[in-house]
Amino acid sequence: MGSNSATPAHRRHHTSQLVSVEGKYYLIDCGEATQLQLKRYKLRAQRINNIFISHLHGDHYLGLMGLLSSMHLMGRNKSLDLYGPKGLQEIITLQLKYSDTVFNYEVNFHEIDTEKHQLIHEDELVTVHSIPLDHRISCSGFLISEKPKNRRIIREAIPEDFSVRNIIRLKKGEDVYSEDGKLLFKNEDVTLPPRQTFKYAYCSDTKYNESIIPIIEEADMLYHESTFLEEHMDRASTTYHSTAKEAATIAKKAKVGKLLLGHFSARYKDIEPLQQEAREVFEESYLAIEGEEFILDS
Amino acid sequence: MGSNSATPAHRRHHTSQLVSVEGKYYLIDCGEATQLQLKRYKLRAQRINNIFISHLHGDHYLGLMGLLSSMHLMGRNKSLDLYGPKGLQEIITLQLKYSDTVFNYEVNFHEIDTEKHQLIHEDELVTVHSIPLDHRISCSGFLISEKPKNRRIIREAIPEDFSVRNIIRLKKGEDVYSEDGKLLFKNEDVTLPPRQTFKYAYCSDTKYNESIIPIIEEADMLYHESTFLEEHMDRASTTYHSTAKEAATIAKKAKVGKLLLGHFSARYKDIEPLQQEAREVFEESYLAIEGEEFILDS
Repeated sequence: MGSNSATPAHRRHHTSQLVSVEGKYYLIDCGEATQLQLKRYKLRAQRINNIFISHLHGDHYLGLMGLLSSMHLMGRNKSLDLYGPKGLQEIITLQLKYSDTVFNYEVNFHEIDTEKHQLIHEDELVTVHSIPLDHRISCSGFLISEKPKNRRIIREAIPEDFSVRNIIRLKKGEDVYSEDGKLLFKNEDVTLPPRQTFKYAYCSDTKYNESIIPIIEEADMLYHESTFLEEHMDRASTTYHSTAKEAATIAKKAKVGKLLLGHFSARYKDIEPLQQEAREVFEESYLAIEGEEFILDS
Repeated sequence: MGSNSATPAHRRHHTSQLVSVEGKYYLIDCGEATQLQLKRYKLRAQRINNIFISHLHGDHYLGLMGLLSSMHLMGRNKSLDLYGPKGLQEIITLQLKYSDTVFNYEVNFHEIDTEKHQLIHEDELVTVHSIPLDHRISCSGFLISEKPKNRRIIREAIPEDFSVRNIIRLKKGEDVYSEDGKLLFKNEDVTLPPRQTFKYAYCSDTKYNESIIPIIEEADMLYHESTFLEEHMDRASTTYHSTAKEAATIAKKAKVGKLLLGHFSARYKDIEPLQQEAREVFEESYLAIEGEEFILDS
């Protein structure tokens, strides 16, 4: 929904990303106007059930209160899980107090310990782990990992009246026996291997930090901030940000599939040079252009 | 910058208005994405020195933190005066604490007593008075009144080397005498009357409330919220909002020059009927369409 850092510029909005896993929406960061960007790209906000906030710099969360309020005003009643660093709950609670508002739905706050790499969320589709980042304030990245999938049944190879219990057995990789213990279907004859699962790592904001490599290793896609070009390396260092080359170096060392670059400094109207710089180190580097969809598929 | 209530919809943004007096900018309310709207309409945020927040419902102030942050990041160093109800300073201070940020410029907070009609701001161009409104939470409107202007000097009628001191005398309406007390210039011969001054009254959010009439009487322009049509009067009443007809009735009773309608409910895609309804009561009714400029001129 946005890929600019600090101030919005050149029609680039502040950071926010929507991760869709089998139609389920996970929102990562929520810069100002995220709710407008969701509308613009025709993404239904009410489908979001989990929101992850990396840190409390405004460009990563100032759209949150507006989004939560709109969910309330549009009649939401299903609960929402909100993950973020210490302070996020206090800020939202204070704003609700002064607007004398109680949401119609429950917000479950989960405070992230930004110093630790640990499981912070789990549901039927994914696990989400925190990634300790090295920024000016407490900041956490997120590793979203799909859970292992079931084997895929070859519909033509099984009887139409096959019981649900047996279908579940096949999906789990088991063979199917008759009541008297006779092998009816050998699993590999009637199923295909599970579809591939994917890992997406989100790392913003951070200075160059090799300690994240074991966590993000072999992720199918890594989003790594690249606020600056190498020529502004000093600026990257003092502001706890990374250059495109540094992002690409992390991507290469972590042997990820693809690298997504973002959190661009407003000083760059043209962001192509950031991609070029990254590609010199890691070929599979792409720009996180807002509105674009990046599909992980086998 | 925006005229929609509660949730942004139909490409209408949340409430924010820029009042320009002789090139000096005053911002009233600051809904989410106000900084983006300022950019869109090529209005320089750094020229704003005074911001007035009517109340702490999100659609009136959630863009403030982002705007203040961008002013900081863009190098502002001149101070800014911020007027709003109790709670605003606490919210901003808390957000600054967790982002570990100290602005490069000073923000002078002025807490408004929303129960009182009183002078809250004065500078060389205008006075601003609070207008107690009747809303679900503490809420204040704003009456911006231009100060009396100087008489206008007829350049051709005075010598080119006329002293600054004498020019000031003429502007104030005084005659000019020579050192030995002889009348040199009779004021009315070399000056024109001051240009007309204007009053702008901003009343959002409020239910129908005649007690504001003495305050806003004969304002050149009144902005009055008209969230609903008369057919949704019940909804207006329970949510402490007004209908277009009610806004027009206030305008008529207060004998204002023009009425600006805004804070439209997201339920209306087409807002023309709101204008029609108001015009049946008060002909000079207009819609606060974002991006449009309303000029008060004699």
